[in-house]
Amino acid sequence: MKETWFYETLFPSVRLGLKVKETLVSNKSQYQKISILDTYQFGKVLILDGVVQTTERDEFIYHEMLTHLPMLSHPHPERVLVIGGGDGGILREALKYPVKQVFLVEIDKKVIEFSKIYLSAICRNSFNDRRANIIIDDGVNFVKEGKGKFDVIIVDSSDPIGPAKVLFSSKFYGDVFNILSHDYGIFAQQTGSPFLQREELPHVYRRLKKIFPFVTAFFAAVPTYIGGLFSFVFASKGINPMKIRLSEIEKRYRKLKLKTRYYNPRIHHSAFALPTYIREAVEGKRNG
Amino acid sequence: MKETWFYETLFPSVRLGLKVKETLVSNKSQYQKISILDTYQFGKVLILDGVVQTTERDEFIYHEMLTHLPMLSHPHPERVLVIGGGDGGILREALKYPVKQVFLVEIDKKVIEFSKIYLSAICRNSFNDRRANIIIDDGVNFVKEGKGKFDVIIVDSSDPIGPAKVLFSSKFYGDVFNILSHDYGIFAQQTGSPFLQREELPHVYRRLKKIFPFVTAFFAAVPTYIGGLFSFVFASKGINPMKIRLSEIEKRYRKLKLKTRYYNPRIHHSAFALPTYIREAVEGKRNG
Repeated sequence: MKETWFYETLFPSVRLGLKVKETLVSNKSQYQKISILDTYQFGKVLILDGVVQTTERDEFIYHEMLTHLPMLSHPHPERVLVIGGGDGGILREALKYPVKQVFLVEIDKKVIEFSKIYLSAICRNSFNDRRANIIIDDGVNFVKEGKGKFDVIIVDSSDPIGPAKVLFSSKFYGDVFNILSHDYGIFAQQTGSPFLQREELPHVYRRLKKIFPFVTAFFAAVPTYIGGLFSFVFASKGINPMKIRLSEIEKRYRKLKLKTRYYNPRIHHSAFALPTYIREAVEGKRNG
Repeated sequence: MKETWFYETLFPSVRLGLKVKETLVSNKSQYQKISILDTYQFGKVLILDGVVQTTERDEFIYHEMLTHLPMLSHPHPERVLVIGGGDGGILREALKYPVKQVFLVEIDKKVIEFSKIYLSAICRNSFNDRRANIIIDDGVNFVKEGKGKFDVIIVDSSDPIGPAKVLFSSKFYGDVFNILSHDYGIFAQQTGSPFLQREELPHVYRRLKKIFPFVTAFFAAVPTYIGGLFSFVFASKGINPMKIRLSEIEKRYRKLKLKTRYYNPRIHHSAFALPTYIREAVEGKRNG
């Protein structure tokens, strides 16, 4: 029988290929092409404009790291804003905390609609949580309008090509700063593979450095995001995450009785170690 | 113009694809099919039996991590044994230390021959170093015959399918134990992707635990080894690497004036953090 393979089109000279059981969704929304495939290795896979966003099998790595690194670095996050994240994975993890409200601002309502139907293993019941406020809007507008303050803001978007590009601009970061709470205020965002998307993390890092007193990067390796380590930025008004002791993270983790499959306090503490060539790229030194 | 792509055949349902400029070597040796391709993203790539072994662009991550984690955990390594490693990358890194001798035991002389011609960016001058002893033999025989003792033994082989399978057996590990020096004696080996090769690290870990007093795993993310984090085992007669303080590793690193592009003492220290699902797999707990 003929095999069907999906090949990601993010990079011109390197590709991830996934063997496909079945195409569940192939849709063109107002913003992007949305596909959901059922695959042999990774279960159901959400693909936007040809790029893998999340999969049933490895989503826990990305969603746990992008949620718990900022959330556990904050002593008592109560109001959380997620921009993007229409698959509900970040929302699910953020709702594990005793938060008052989590706003999720997704530009493309179709992503949420399809995720509720096909990716229930990822979003679970999170869209129905009484603390969840789902808003269909451009994240850029939402932060500009500045309704209320947030303790933690997480951007879970596609790469800075297509509709998400504006979420990586200095203007956007300035607006994010303005709606973060004054005491601690933590912002986190994915910044791609420093190996294959070499400029992305250094650019974002330098933009944030002009606005936030504390900026650093952290890392995780996600199987379907090819290119070795995958990077995230962490920016805060009042918290240097590298100064929080392991024992304090352990205390918070235990107190919350968090259940996680990838994340743990030692992983948290270790995720801030920068490989030398990435440190040099972030600091603006030339590297081979 | 038609594009040429190489697709790795290691996994049945997930593939790495590399866009190819030119095929430099396509050879069948006594042991395996050897290919060297020039690719757009990763430069020259060594492929054995369809599986990517190393590439010019990302080899530094794998070679630095598999060499410096064991070498810097030892207070004064003088005699080093590398099994496999015919591309010369581990040899190159090990020769950065003031060692007396590095033995390299490669079963397939063709791998060394082709590496010297096409992968000089990886092996550089290491095969000509007066401290390097290159032996064409089966690593299993070499450790069984037990000529002399070694402070550090590194297995840099392909996966436990094909000719390298015996390098993952209890018998082999027992022979390795016997030829390690008594005081510290450190052994390290690659054990694949815990995500895609789920059984490999737990199996090796348990086998080593029956023989060595100290056994642990460490991790790095290598772009061309798909499957997220890539794992290694660390076993020792007298050293628990997780008890060596960061300041001690920093002291040794500075004293040796090591030049590395990925490795640094904080990366060393952080590489031993186990994600929860991997820790549970290694400890024998069920995980989803």
